[in-house]
Amino acid sequence: MSEQIEDFIRRRKELNKIIMENSELVTRRFFNLDEQAYKPGALNSKTKEMLGLIASVVLRCDDCIYYHLINCYRQKLSDAEFSEVMSIALIVGGSITIPHIRRAYQHWSELKKGEPHE
Amino acid sequence: MSEQIEDFIRRRKELNKIIMENSELVTRRFFNLDEQAYKPGALNSKTKEMLGLIASVVLRCDDCIYYHLINCYRQKLSDAEFSEVMSIALIVGGSITIPHIRRAYQHWSELKKGEPHE
Amino acid sequence: MSEQIEDFIRRRKELNKIIMENSELVTRRFFNLDEQAYKPGALNSKTKEMLGLIASVVLRCDDCIYYHLINCYRQKLSDAEFSEVMSIALIVGGSITIPHIRRAYQHWSELKKGEPHE
Amino acid sequence: MSEQIEDFIRRRKELNKIIMENSELVTRRFFNLDEQAYKPGALNSKTKEMLGLIASVVLRCDDCIYYHLINCYRQKLSDAEFSEVMSIALIVGGSITIPHIRRAYQHWSELKKGEPHE
Amino acid sequence: MSEQIEDFIRRRKELNKIIMENSELVTRRFFNLDEQAYKPGALNSKTKEMLGLIASVVLRCDDCIYYHLINCYRQKLSDAEFSEVMSIALIVGGSITIPHIRRAYQHWSELKKGEPHE
Amino acid sequence: MSEQIEDFIRRRKELNKIIMENSELVTRRFFNLDEQAYKPGALNSKTKEMLGLIASVVLRCDDCIYYHLINCYRQKLSDAEFSEVMSIALIVGGSITIPHIRRAYQHWSELKKGEPHE
Repeated sequence: MSEQIEDFIRRRKELNKIIMENSELVTRRFFNLDEQAYKPGALNSKTKEMLGLIASVVLRCDDCIYYHLINCYRQKLSDAEFSEVMSIALIVGGSITIPHIRRAYQHWSELKKGEPHE
Repeated sequence: MSEQIEDFIRRRKELNKIIMENSELVTRRFFNLDEQAYKPGALNSKTKEMLGLIASVVLRCDDCIYYHLINCYRQKLSDAEFSEVMSIALIVGGSITIPHIRRAYQHWSELKKGEPHE
Repeated sequence: MSEQIEDFIRRRKELNKIIMENSELVTRRFFNLDEQAYKPGALNSKTKEMLGLIASVVLRCDDCIYYHLINCYRQKLSDAEFSEVMSIALIVGGSITIPHIRRAYQHWSELKKGEPHE
Repeated sequence: MSEQIEDFIRRRKELNKIIMENSELVTRRFFNLDEQAYKPGALNSKTKEMLGLIASVVLRCDDCIYYHLINCYRQKLSDAEFSEVMSIALIVGGSITIPHIRRAYQHWSELKKGEPHE
Repeated sequence: MSEQIEDFIRRRKELNKIIMENSELVTRRFFNLDEQAYKPGALNSKTKEMLGLIASVVLRCDDCIYYHLINCYRQKLSDAEFSEVMSIALIVGGSITIPHIRRAYQHWSELKKGEPHE
Repeated sequence: MSEQIEDFIRRRKELNKIIMENSELVTRRFFNLDEQAYKPGALNSKTKEMLGLIASVVLRCDDCIYYHLINCYRQKLSDAEFSEVMSIALIVGGSITIPHIRRAYQHWSELKKGEPHE
């Protein structure tokens, strides 16, 4: 795993810890639900991560995109599948999503360098 | 197919025809691309329609939700799969999506009445 | 309570029932959390309903606005307080919120007719 | 002017009157500023109405779109110019704007029927 | 006051000065209205700043969040009150707001270090 | 042209190249359409760039704003015209757009320093 990705994951954990220690019940339970929502069920984890990814692109949240990209990569999303998710996101969300899609392609190529699919 | 769904599809076609006859090249080509984006490729049609559906829910567009719901239904999305797409949409987009999710559940039950999965 | 408000509340309940009976665990738990979030705590119910109201206006969701308006009214929000919430919403969200603010003022005057503060 | 457009304008005035009579200073001053912003200056009224129109389409507000469409029509926006504004809106905002663009084309053709450019 | 907060406030002032010196009347008056909207009236300053804060979180604007956080802190918002505002924002806006809520908790803990409530 | 602007344009090109080499047909065609949409037609390039600019401000995308600002500058948008576009954007989009408008004014003054209108 590349250093940049490790940094992102470490920083994410640290900040989540601050929230968990300082927030009240509703927020803590929401974080729990957020985790449950992506657990495999009728849909498998790869499909659920793609759903999380496209939702994050059309809502234009770089941190959320990056997080789901890492998970998609770990679920063995292929390059062709990744490109098709980006195409639908671009069509639905328009050119305003392009800066985020640019960074998603860049992160995707970094993920492949740092931690290749065997 | 129920009357309500037929109406929706007919009205959609009529309005698209007005656009096609009056718009200029960029818009007409966009409509073409929009259709291509959901054609099966590395991802199958069912997965692509789920991606279109969740993007429409988090961006809160009833017409877009209804359109992708019909397509998801035709692609044999199961009730359990539908519910899991809605759960991820709700977690990502928050309670502000609830009025749209309410209508999505209502439409889903109408689709099942009008045109049952054999 | 006016007929229109009763209709809104009844319809809301019916649709929520459809969701509760057909959705999976994550969605049902979210609905539960949504209710808990507005329970009095460090902040009282009136303040929490104002927070729900302004969030609904700047995100431009009529159903959500109407729901929190009813609750604000029941929590004895005064006309002057209502107007100030609307002013901040308008300043933050801009003229794109005006159609929703127009309907909010209309609903507010209906609430006062149907169920006056004693 | 067609009846539908007259209705829209009359209803808009009535609701604005409710706001003006019941809101506080900040809201009333905002309404005033909103009017001033479209007055001719370095940019003429037609250009300013096109700016208001595209902003309304990408933010997906039907009432705002309709209002600026009427003003664009009165400022003698041509069919070709209208189509180009819609194309840029569609490219920037993506397919999620299509239901609004559909209704915009429909309103545009009604405007031309009801009150033709001499 | 910590250096980081001072920097934020100084930079904000500098950029506002550029706008004030170069913009035209509508923008300058808007800035004036923006200030008036948060002045105490029927609602006190603390409540108004909470309204500004939640609106900023659900619309996902870090600069706006930071600004209202500073003001909330100065208005003696307690930790418990802050957490409840964040919970409602999270429920309304969904997980897409989490990166902003993470940074809000981080800023809040910095505010408490730099300038403790006596 | 200032170094900062050159950097922005170079980086944008590099990232677009990554997309062009790795994306599939729909994305590549969209990029092509995106370029066509701003070509002069019934509306001239300056007007089209102003439309792209205001859409980018109300949708709050800094990269998109910066890109259209550069193009507006090259199309000889005057200071007064720039200010009026910003005023309409601010009125439509509200104070949540202010951080982006602040940066737009800052970029505009840099553009004038680096590459003055002759």
